[in-house]
Amino acid sequence: MSDSRPVALDAMGGDHAPHEIVAGAVHAVRERGLPVVLVGSPRVLFEALADHGATQEVPIVRAEEALAMNEGALASLRRPRSSIAVACHLVRRGDACAVVSAGSTAGVVATGRLRLKAQQHVLRPAIAVRLPTLPRPTLLVDAGANADAKPEMLVQFAHLGAAYAELAHGATEPKIGLLTIGSEPEKGNKLTKRANELLQSSPGLHFAGNIEGHDLLTGKVDVITTDGFTGNVALKTMEGAVRYAFAELRTAVEESRLAKLGAALQRNRLRELRNRLDAEAYGGAVLLGLNGTVVIAHGSSRAPAISAACQLAADMSANGIVTRIGDRIATSHRSHRLW
Amino acid sequence: MSDSRPVALDAMGGDHAPHEIVAGAVHAVRERGLPVVLVGSPRVLFEALADHGATQEVPIVRAEEALAMNEGALASLRRPRSSIAVACHLVRRGDACAVVSAGSTAGVVATGRLRLKAQQHVLRPAIAVRLPTLPRPTLLVDAGANADAKPEMLVQFAHLGAAYAELAHGATEPKIGLLTIGSEPEKGNKLTKRANELLQSSPGLHFAGNIEGHDLLTGKVDVITTDGFTGNVALKTMEGAVRYAFAELRTAVEESRLAKLGAALQRNRLRELRNRLDAEAYGGAVLLGLNGTVVIAHGSSRAPAISAACQLAADMSANGIVTRIGDRIATSHRSHRLW
Repeated sequence: MSDSRPVALDAMGGDHAPHEIVAGAVHAVRERGLPVVLVGSPRVLFEALADHGATQEVPIVRAEEALAMNEGALASLRRPRSSIAVACHLVRRGDACAVVSAGSTAGVVATGRLRLKAQQHVLRPAIAVRLPTLPRPTLLVDAGANADAKPEMLVQFAHLGAAYAELAHGATEPKIGLLTIGSEPEKGNKLTKRANELLQSSPGLHFAGNIEGHDLLTGKVDVITTDGFTGNVALKTMEGAVRYAFAELRTAVEESRLAKLGAALQRNRLRELRNRLDAEAYGGAVLLGLNGTVVIAHGSSRAPAISAACQLAADMSANGIVTRIGDRIATSHRSHRLW
Repeated sequence: MSDSRPVALDAMGGDHAPHEIVAGAVHAVRERGLPVVLVGSPRVLFEALADHGATQEVPIVRAEEALAMNEGALASLRRPRSSIAVACHLVRRGDACAVVSAGSTAGVVATGRLRLKAQQHVLRPAIAVRLPTLPRPTLLVDAGANADAKPEMLVQFAHLGAAYAELAHGATEPKIGLLTIGSEPEKGNKLTKRANELLQSSPGLHFAGNIEGHDLLTGKVDVITTDGFTGNVALKTMEGAVRYAFAELRTAVEESRLAKLGAALQRNRLRELRNRLDAEAYGGAVLLGLNGTVVIAHGSSRAPAISAACQLAADMSANGIVTRIGDRIATSHRSHRLW
């Protein structure tokens, strides 16, 4: 499933960079057999690799600078030699198959757009996040790249997600839902009402209609299309609510002596469940629509999440996500000629 | 806490109308000592009251028509004699202190705006929903009345929520948070970026800055201001995620024989917790900014939720929510003169 080119891993981005990133790289190389190059400060990275006895296993590519976690889009323009910019450059030159970064989302999106450029006819690259539905994940697109979107973009986000669902989840005719505030087509805000009309007349998309916030975790559709503002609010609300429910549960259990027994019995199952619902375990969000695969790991990622993100990036690249999106967008562009 | 005027209860709105609504009225009268009038079809309501032996305890006001649950704003214009319209009329004439309806939110909002009118200088009435945070609830405003909002409206929603928090939750200087997608002021979409600027310079508001979806249930602020589209998506996402977490938990428990014991021990605590997190138990959303108190109960409300909504409506009215909002908006209007 992977070619011989390595994943370019931004070693300087993330709350636990560089040590957890380096540990994730070592894990990916040793446990998954994935080639990885670390991009960042050679001195720091060499030392971190030495702690794992892995200086011979993971190559380092030099980048003098790094984007701080609180730096956004503008900073990325001023830092052509940041670790994320250099990682994108490796993909652009064909020296790496994909980029993984746990850096600031705004910084990664802006750098990716600047260095890799959007694919032809793609209005805006967008972030796809897998929601932990069963039997297969639902993709939320856009989860935060575009705070202000136009209706035409929501149609493209549906195509980006459909390509992902086909390649990664084996969906044959991925069902598309539009996130809004009422199931009837005329419900919603101006953006979603117009997007509903466009989606209804879009060839190549299996539009299942409007969905609401309740439906994010019901597995009703394969792809949920939304603007990046709404998508990001919904994603973080979902994460917060799940965390809250588990915290309340823990309190309820701890307050009762008898219940402690029950809690002990359930502990393993609960941890497993919480892990599935936990954003870190998703393995990362994918920035779709660029000339190259970019996976954005959660800022708080530790080694296992970084390793999972490298796997996701390598798989997406090997499956030809960029080509698949290119085909979809080109077909849609020819049939519409509106945009 | 209540005057002698009854709550006007729309008996024809809601998934379980009229029987659960009537049962809720009987509960409010008998258990809470609240005067209630039922508005709807006299024949149907008389029979339902007879089942409770309560025909002498709850008066009926005739309304020939009803808005169906799937009817929205336009239908309310065509139905001047709908049960919700008649209930609003009772408040307008001073014959009832407040309206309670479990009918379609869009229908109640449109009818309320048409029959009771917005208070002076209120740009748009908005829906406030209590989130189950501790020690006191956080209010989400607007939870769905205005799908497309302007930045100035978000400032007013903050005032509406602040008045509610002061009266109902004893908050002395209610902290206001703006729901967006990043904590820095410059993060968000065009709407929230401008709203952030306006909120920073609004006298009479204790603006605590941007908050994110994670923060809905942390009790970080007293009032969360947002447009009705984002607020409604966030609210339903939260409800869906909590429901999902509990369903997953149940599955995890049921799959393990040993764990059944633990589950039995915890059953009561869990039910209690789920009830607190359940939308139905909130007692209803309040439509703020009209010349009269309107409480919108969840469409799926049964008798206890209807009775709780009647209590909320009577309390809001007795506490003078309309006057309090009038004072806040008038002060804010004088100091701004922008709108």
